[in-house]
Amino acid sequence: MSAAPEASTVRDVIITPAPGGVTAPRGFRSAALHCGIKAAPQALDLTVIAADHAASAAGLFTTNLAQAAPVLISRQHLGRTGGVARAIVVNSGCANACTGDQGLADASRMANEVAAALACEPAQVLVASTGVIGVDLKMDLVSSGIRDAVAALARGKGSETARAIMTTDPFPKEHAVTVQTARGSFTVGGTAKGSGMIEPNMATMLAFLTTDAGVHPAILDRALRESGRDTFNAITVDGECSTNDCLFAMASNASGVTIDDELYPALIEAFVGVSRELALGIVRGGEGATKLISVHVSEAPTVDEARQVARTIANSPLVKTAVHGADPNWGRIVAAAGRAGVTFDVQRATVRIGSILLFENGLPHDERAPGAAEYLKGSDIRIEVALGTGGRQSATIWTCDLSAEYVRINGEYRT
Amino acid sequence: MSAAPEASTVRDVIITPAPGGVTAPRGFRSAALHCGIKAAPQALDLTVIAADHAASAAGLFTTNLAQAAPVLISRQHLGRTGGVARAIVVNSGCANACTGDQGLADASRMANEVAAALACEPAQVLVASTGVIGVDLKMDLVSSGIRDAVAALARGKGSETARAIMTTDPFPKEHAVTVQTARGSFTVGGTAKGSGMIEPNMATMLAFLTTDAGVHPAILDRALRESGRDTFNAITVDGECSTNDCLFAMASNASGVTIDDELYPALIEAFVGVSRELALGIVRGGEGATKLISVHVSEAPTVDEARQVARTIANSPLVKTAVHGADPNWGRIVAAAGRAGVTFDVQRATVRIGSILLFENGLPHDERAPGAAEYLKGSDIRIEVALGTGGRQSATIWTCDLSAEYVRINGEYRT
Repeated sequence: MSAAPEASTVRDVIITPAPGGVTAPRGFRSAALHCGIKAAPQALDLTVIAADHAASAAGLFTTNLAQAAPVLISRQHLGRTGGVARAIVVNSGCANACTGDQGLADASRMANEVAAALACEPAQVLVASTGVIGVDLKMDLVSSGIRDAVAALARGKGSETARAIMTTDPFPKEHAVTVQTARGSFTVGGTAKGSGMIEPNMATMLAFLTTDAGVHPAILDRALRESGRDTFNAITVDGECSTNDCLFAMASNASGVTIDDELYPALIEAFVGVSRELALGIVRGGEGATKLISVHVSEAPTVDEARQVARTIANSPLVKTAVHGADPNWGRIVAAAGRAGVTFDVQRATVRIGSILLFENGLPHDERAPGAAEYLKGSDIRIEVALGTGGRQSATIWTCDLSAEYVRINGEYRT
Repeated sequence: MSAAPEASTVRDVIITPAPGGVTAPRGFRSAALHCGIKAAPQALDLTVIAADHAASAAGLFTTNLAQAAPVLISRQHLGRTGGVARAIVVNSGCANACTGDQGLADASRMANEVAAALACEPAQVLVASTGVIGVDLKMDLVSSGIRDAVAALARGKGSETARAIMTTDPFPKEHAVTVQTARGSFTVGGTAKGSGMIEPNMATMLAFLTTDAGVHPAILDRALRESGRDTFNAITVDGECSTNDCLFAMASNASGVTIDDELYPALIEAFVGVSRELALGIVRGGEGATKLISVHVSEAPTVDEARQVARTIANSPLVKTAVHGADPNWGRIVAAAGRAGVTFDVQRATVRIGSILLFENGLPHDERAPGAAEYLKGSDIRIEVALGTGGRQSATIWTCDLSAEYVRINGEYRT
């Protein structure tokens, strides 16, 4: 992941990238190993992220009606503790979804075994799974993996955790930042996995944030929802919302810096910074993706309407294939915007690819297309649509191009 | 197109397939030619469908906010005449969309020139275009083509008209049926084109129906909306709604059979029969399609909810790629249904591929997957989801698989 310095817009606060990913914040350790769920020898498929002591915790879950067992169990645990957790246990290679009572028993058992090893309440353990749907976990392998992982918990293993949660992801995703404030500094870290079945409606992936700030569970929950909106919930690979998506946050208070009203904006900025880096990583690593596309829609009456138009363009297979083929096909962008269900006058709208204005006053500037085609050969593409409604709201949705490789990945293999 | 005998459910009515397509009904003639819009020599790109006398007419148009000039002009003409038309003029190769005032002038001129040649009011001519967006029509070529076409109008040229409206369509689509009633017989014919930017929201393609029944314009309008709902509006190729979609119907009264309340069901049955044949032809000829998929959702509280779930499954790229790869991936079907925005209990839902029950009580029957995989190698695939809500409503949406060829067609060529 790139780690450009991130300027803070909050007064007296300096935010800088930090190494260490999800275990960058003090008070967290992790371990990752191959327990045998994935067929490939030595492929990491189990990880535990643990706080040294009971920590504040919050979670956002898939809105899909078909919710996997770990989603149901984790939601129940957070409700029972009122937002306290010691650990997150994650396996990849098997989603434990559509697995009925056996699946619920297995997810509970994962929590129980981590709890026993850490000497905490089972409800203080959150569970996440990702992989094939409709297959039972091999619990013998998982159980012995959990024992070994808890015994191996250490600082500095964030990158192994990032690799252990991958499925078809082409690369691991982790990021962390340190936030210096007048009242001391705290750190926010995180890791996430993609890379298919990605459309945010919370949250279309697994993502885990940690911080050593002291954050009340209710504040942590609010911060997670607020920072997720324009990051994890603003990406789409294929418009699909999974059965297993979840986003967890834990706050250890190991830094001694307590988040109050004054410091809340700094926490949000750090959460957004880490989450955006992870979310864009998911899109960049989308199945078959060769380009990151940011779709920016402005001059809308409301943010929701801007987001709706941006999302429709971002999910348009004709726009995504055109970008893949470096075709500056503004007509497909106009057509997608026009069917988004938001009222605007096409005559007043403008379409830009990069900074190149291709459409205005209802007419194309096709003479500029060669420059736009050249621009589209790059790997970071910006599409801008100004709706011209007189409104001033805007939104950005990130997506990737649609390639034959996406079809190959999803048509040839059961993932 | 196949032409299996179609049994009528209306008493004392017999419906049988007939040859002749859009000019099968009495009182209609057509002509098609190459005027030069398409680059390929002799590729048909202009057609006129004309009634011998002023006929009842009705139209349904795209709901996209970006409406092409011919859509705007045809809608205006139908409003002005209150539902009377002499002819439909159609060009392929150029959509005359996003072409501003020049585009409106060109679409009007097409109507004017047909009207002059037929000695009728310009408002009695409907115009349709399909092809590349943002390019002006070469009106010199179109004008001379219109003169030649009107001079060549004849019976029995329906199949040439069907070919003249094609763009990326792999084959022409036409169908006709004759309806025998106690009060005499009438005929319904039609032609349509696909094959990308197909998602019904009226109507995602061009389609033209003709009949020699006598139908009041208001009844014709109602019949078009009613028959379109479960045919042209129940198909999707890629979830895209075009700028140029329109569905026109004309009724010549040449049969002398007048549609009243008693015969209305027979007209609807004939309209549905012809429209479904054409609509399925569009899906079968969808860009890159190798399979026709019918998604049938039952046990819903309302038809709208059944349709919404069916549409979400039909537009799911993961379902479409799985079918393409003959992978009986019921998990993706459950996940798509679960994000459709309709409330149901996954534990009570069932999923069938063909007649093979793969998912019930929240659990898979994976041992049946090999049989389902074999079934998926066919070209006509049925997916059935029963929601188990206690409701009794159902709906079917037709779509095609998603192949690497779709990406190639839309990523490599400007269409």
